[in-house]
Parts: sequence; structure tokens; C-alpha cells
Amino acid sequence: MNATETLTDLETYTRDVAERAKTASRELMTVSGAKKIEWLRCAADLIRERTTTLIDENARDLEQAPNYGLTDAAIDRLRLTEDRLENIAAALEQIALLPDPIGEVIESNSRPNGLLVTRVRVPLGVVFFIYESRPNVTVDAAALCVKSGNAVILRGGKEAFHSNQAFHAILADALEQTDLPRHAVQLVETTDREAVGRFLRLKELIDVTIPRGGKGLIERVTSEATMPVIKHFDGNCHVYVDKLADLSLAVEITVNSKCQRPGVCNAAESLIVHRDVAEEFLPAIARALKEQDVELRCSPEALKWIPDAEPATEEDYGAEYLDLIISVHVVDDLESAISHINQYSSGHTEAIVTDDLPASQRFSTAIDSSAVIVNASTRFNDGEEFGLGAEIGISTDKFHARGPCGLRELTSYKYVVHGAGQLKG
Amino acid sequence: MNATETLTDLETYTRDVAERAKTASRELMTVSGAKKIEWLRCAADLIRERTTTLIDENARDLEQAPNYGLTDAAIDRLRLTEDRLENIAAALEQIALLPDPIGEVIESNSRPNGLLVTRVRVPLGVVFFIYESRPNVTVDAAALCVKSGNAVILRGGKEAFHSNQAFHAILADALEQTDLPRHAVQLVETTDREAVGRFLRLKELIDVTIPRGGKGLIERVTSEATMPVIKHFDGNCHVYVDKLADLSLAVEITVNSKCQRPGVCNAAESLIVHRDVAEEFLPAIARALKEQDVELRCSPEALKWIPDAEPATEEDYGAEYLDLIISVHVVDDLESAISHINQYSSGHTEAIVTDDLPASQRFSTAIDSSAVIVNASTRFNDGEEFGLGAEIGISTDKFHARGPCGLRELTSYKYVVHGAGQLKG
Repeated sequence: MNATETLTDLETYTRDVAERAKTASRELMTVSGAKKIEWLRCAADLIRERTTTLIDENARDLEQAPNYGLTDAAIDRLRLTEDRLENIAAALEQIALLPDPIGEVIESNSRPNGLLVTRVRVPLGVVFFIYESRPNVTVDAAALCVKSGNAVILRGGKEAFHSNQAFHAILADALEQTDLPRHAVQLVETTDREAVGRFLRLKELIDVTIPRGGKGLIERVTSEATMPVIKHFDGNCHVYVDKLADLSLAVEITVNSKCQRPGVCNAAESLIVHRDVAEEFLPAIARALKEQDVELRCSPEALKWIPDAEPATEEDYGAEYLDLIISVHVVDDLESAISHINQYSSGHTEAIVTDDLPASQRFSTAIDSSAVIVNASTRFNDGEEFGLGAEIGISTDKFHARGPCGLRELTSYKYVVHGAGQLKG
Repeated sequence: MNATETLTDLETYTRDVAERAKTASRELMTVSGAKKIEWLRCAADLIRERTTTLIDENARDLEQAPNYGLTDAAIDRLRLTEDRLENIAAALEQIALLPDPIGEVIESNSRPNGLLVTRVRVPLGVVFFIYESRPNVTVDAAALCVKSGNAVILRGGKEAFHSNQAFHAILADALEQTDLPRHAVQLVETTDREAVGRFLRLKELIDVTIPRGGKGLIERVTSEATMPVIKHFDGNCHVYVDKLADLSLAVEITVNSKCQRPGVCNAAESLIVHRDVAEEFLPAIARALKEQDVELRCSPEALKWIPDAEPATEEDYGAEYLDLIISVHVVDDLESAISHINQYSSGHTEAIVTDDLPASQRFSTAIDSSAVIVNASTRFNDGEEFGLGAEIGISTDKFHARGPCGLRELTSYKYVVHGAGQLKG
């Protein structure tokens, strides 16, 4: 087969997959919540039944892992064990228990002419989900998409190819066993990068693309996609310690935001301190952070109080370290803190520590990020902590969905209007 | 100046405009509802004060109109009169009265650990609005954008260049008089088409682009934009007459949907009739439509009952005529009606005429369009009829905003979380 034939095949393959997804999505639109619950529970049961198969298929991926240059940590994340499979099955049962978002009357409005205008939640349609490494994401994403009435095209990483196929077989078998359209969940069977590009052109068949992975993946998807994308870029999160802060609380919140899990998007990367408390607070937080092996990179003002720290560069203020490093800056007042954060932040999560009500109100209103947290750790910005039940990602966009994306963020709405013969006149 | 210098200037110009808009949008985020009301009323007053100037500037556009090949109808739409200016001023005062969307707590959730999670409505940021001909749109769009806390970059058509400039001067003067950022409303000062392309690349400064105009404009914007777009494509709207329809009502609804204003997007373009009522209904609706000079294009089944009509081609089923033409098709049952509509519709508005509750429920759930109307005219799908107060357009997208877009559709949200020292642990 020559190169042209391969590309033609890829074109046909991706279009076939997307068309099957579209057809399945039309069926899913009207499927009852009970049927979707039945499917989720059936899939959970099949995961428990096929534990051996899943672990065997996962072993094939683990064997290949060193060839893909995976780190030990990445290999560990890839590994499926009996305990982890039980957790994945239990997560499906948890999603089954979440309220069904579809059909909800979001609001209604009785018009003077007697028309009853209702806004009803409906699925988006077809979701193209692109993700890397951990195979449990295959199951989570499919569960969230189908529970919200969407068909999903899953494109996992080559590192988890066999594990993903084994999970997909279970999800598809469960669809058949519960009389749901088998193509509601499809796994892309090629790891050819060009296939992603082909899917990204099919805006008439795919309603939204969700990339979850490294910055390179997200940038590529954003630039190539012809349909809407729910993106998750950097998390350069700030903690701002105001002049009326409880400083011992400020130490706790800063340390927790930075250190509780430094490699994730809602960990703090930058500390901003009001000048009036710099003298007391900075030496204290420097001690506390150094105990946790955190490297401090300080602005000239901050260096006055933490003279043994590294000086910060301009890049430090905008950096997402995902590591035990934090930039530190001193500001003259609340407004300077807000300007600094709005300038350098990636719009993910910012916390303020203060006992001053007007300051907390001003900060909450003027900060342009997906979450503003008053007197608590930045680490709380996620779907489970916010009560969404489960999340497919955290959006740093402002359009459609912002912050944690759960079932509701995978939906749209339509107007359903009831009349009794009204004519426009 | 050579071509390269011109392009460099355009690059600098568009970036400057967008950066000023971004700065203004940051200020607007925290402006009170009262200030925005003051601005809207001030602008209304200035329109009344400067009626003579506005009519003079409009006369310059009217003089040029024949050179742009405008039809008489288009020239009439372009014309400003004292009455029309009073209506435009009154519309501003109406928008002033609408509830302010910004700061609304959309929902809140008290978490087990004591965190109070609120979802708060916020502006999108910067709107790039591209539109054609009618100069009142300049005022409406600016009013809706600023009322919802957004800065707006207006790019009107060359046909209304002088009128738009005169309106913009009023809007900007009103911003200054009420101490709001003058760059909250900017009018693009060049009609160079390339300027649009430059703006469409500035995704880091512009949060959403809204094109309003012909299909060519919308297609160009969709393919070039790097930021989200709220699109309004075709309105190929259907009326479906079910077997349990009140047939005299069905005649009224069909005639109203088709004829009340045939040139607009929510006018009906296709009539679908259940076989069981075809014999009685089709001759009756054919008479009624012919009285209104409507041309009928019929499927083979429909031709049996309306033998003197034109036969429909495949293109007719998908056509947006915007004219006194309608396609007519007969189906065996409700499911065939739903499949036909979901296949050919542009997803705008579909009506069903029926007294059968299960049929109305099934139709409402299974039809994938922005509005489903039971027993009333398709013509009701607009912002004012649905109670949105005013609209900037009707979206045929499912992402972010669907159907009529008013103030709320120009907003996003953020999470504001209140704690008392909670740490993740």
C-alpha cells in the first residue's frame, strides 16, 4: 500500500468512526437515565469479571513501556492491579449514582401571549477525547460522556494501547448487553498521529474535542481543530497574603497549596505578600517552605526579608513549575496584587488569605481566573471538591465551560416551547 | 507607503485596538450595574441631542449607497429618520432596565468540609462583533456587550461607515461623561478586509467573535478565527403536522410560519405531513399558501394530493429560501418525520402541530434543533419572544450558547469559594 492509499484509508476510517458516533449520539439523546445506569453497572461488573484479561493486556503495555522512554513514575501510573481495577469499577458505580443531567428544565418563562418557554438540558452530541497514558481515563471519560448522553471517540496514547483496547471491549460489550448503541463508545484503533488531524477536520460530525495531556498536545489540537475545544492550559496559581491576614493560617495555606501535591495544576506557583506584613510573614513562610525543600525565587522587595533566596526573573512570575519551587513577590496594596496576578496568571486558581471582608470581595470580583479561593488552599479547585461528582478535566477557557468540567459541562440546551395556536402578528 | 508598511501598520493598529479593549474589559469587570445604566441613558440622550448630525452623516452613506450596489430595500434599511433614531434611543433605555447579569450567584454548594462553593456570573471579556449594513446594530450590540460587562470591538460594513462613526462618537462620549473606560466601545476605523483577518488571530486578547451577516462572512470568520465564534448559519425550519393535529390550526400555523415575514431565519421552509392526514390537509394548505403566493415544491407522495405543484429536488429539502417558497413532504409516521428533520434541518427551529401528548414529547426530545415549538409558529424563536429582552443574534451552535443570544449568553462564570482555613489533606 502506498502513502496515498494509506491517507485515503485514514480519511475513510476517521469519517466512518465519526459518522457512527453521530448516529449513536442521535440514539443516545433520547435514552433514559435508567438505561445509562444499567450500562455503567454492567461495565463495572465486566471489569471485575475480566480482571485477569485486563491485567494480562496491561502487562503487554508495561513490557513495551521502556521502549517508549517512560519514567518509573509513568510506568507506575500505567500499571493496573486488582485494587486499581476495583477502584475503576467502583468509580463507574459512583457515576451511575450522579443525577442524570439530560432533560433537566434549566428555567422556564411564561410569556404574556401564553407561550411557555422552557430551556432544557440536552447532550452536546459527539465528543472526541484525546488523552495520554493512564488507562483508567478511558473508562472515566466514556462513563461521563455517555452518562451525559454523548457518543465519544476515545483516542488514547500508544503507551496504554492494549489496556485501552481491553477496557474498550468491556465498555462496548456492556453497551450491547444493555441494548445501547455499540458505537456510543469507540476507541481509535490507530496511533497514527495523522488520524487525530483527520478527526479534527470533521466539525460537521464532532461537536467538541477535549485534549487532556501535555502542552504540546493541547497546542496542536487548538490550532488544528475546526470544532470547539475544551482546553486545559497551565495552572500558574497564586496565593496572596493580605495585610489583614491571619499569618499562621497564611503559612498553612501557602504550604498546603505549594506542597501537598506539587506536580498538579492547582498547586501554587507564586506567593504575593502585602508590604505591611512582609517583615513578619516572609521569614516565617521561608522557614516553613524550606522545611519542605521548596526553593524560593524572590523579587528584589522579597529578597530584603529572605536574603538567602534566589532572585526571581520575569519568567518566574509566569512559570508553572509543577515542582518544589515558588516565586515570591511583595506588593504595596491589594490593587497591585490584583494587577500582578491578572497579568501573570494563567487564569486557573488564585487564593487570598485575609480577614478583611471588602478586600476579599474586591479580590473575588477583580481576579479573572476560573476559581478564586478565600482563606483555603488552591488545591481545592477540582470537580470532586466542588461537588461536581467527577470531572473530565479543568477548563482554563471562559467560553462554554470554565474550571472543573463534570457531566453538566458536557451538555448543551435547547428551547422547548409549548403553545396553543399562537401566531406571530 | 508600500504594501509591507501598510500590513505592518494594520498589524500594529489591530493589536493596539485589541489591547485597549482588553484593558477596558478588566475595568468593566468590576463596574456597578448603576454605572452601566447611567451610560446607556446618557447615550440615549446624546442620540436625541445629535439627531441632526446623525441624519447628516447618514446622508453621506445614502449618497454612496448606489455605488455599493445596494438594493432599494437595503437602502431603506440603511436610512436613519427622526422616528428611527427615537426607537434606537428608546431601545437603549429598554436595555438599561434589564436585570444586570454580572455578579449573579448561579448556584452554590456547601461542601462537607465547610467550603462554600459559589458559581458567579462574569463577563466574557472582549467581544469582536462583525456586522453588515443597518447602523442601529452598532448601538444595540455595544449596549448589550457593555451591559454584560464586556468591551466590544465593532466592525461595521462600509455601507454604513459614516453613520457608524457618528453613533460610535456618541457611545464613546457617553463613556467619558459617565467615567467609564472610553475603549470599552471601539469602532474599527478601516474597512480593509485584511483588518478582520488580523483581529481573528488575536485569541489572547479577544474572547469571542460574533459575525452577523451573510453566509460568506460567517464561513470566512469561522475558518479564520483562532478564538471561539458564536455563529448563526441557516434557518431551514420545519413545520410537522402530526396525525392527531387540529388541521385548521395546522393551516394557520403553517401559513404564519411561512408568510408572516418570509425573509427571516425563523420562517418555515419545509412542511412535513403525516400520511393519515395528507388527504384532508394537503389540499387545504395548498389553497391557503397559494392565496399568499407561496410556491410549493412537493415530494412524489405530496404531489399526489397537490398535483399542480412543482416536484421537489433533494436540494429543496435542505434549502433556506428566505422567500415565498416551501418544500412539502409526506411521512409514514412520527419517527420518519423526526429522521427527515434531523437529516435536513439546519438545527434552527422546528414546530409540531399535534394534540397527542406522547407525540409532542417524543418530537421535543428527539429533534436536535435550537428550538422545538409545539402548536405555535416557528416565528417565535427570537430573544424578545423568549423573554431575553434583547438579542445580539441567534446561535445555531450547541457550544456555549444555542438559540437567541441575549445578555446572559455574553457571559461566563467563575467559582468563588469561601473557606476558613481548609487544607487539602
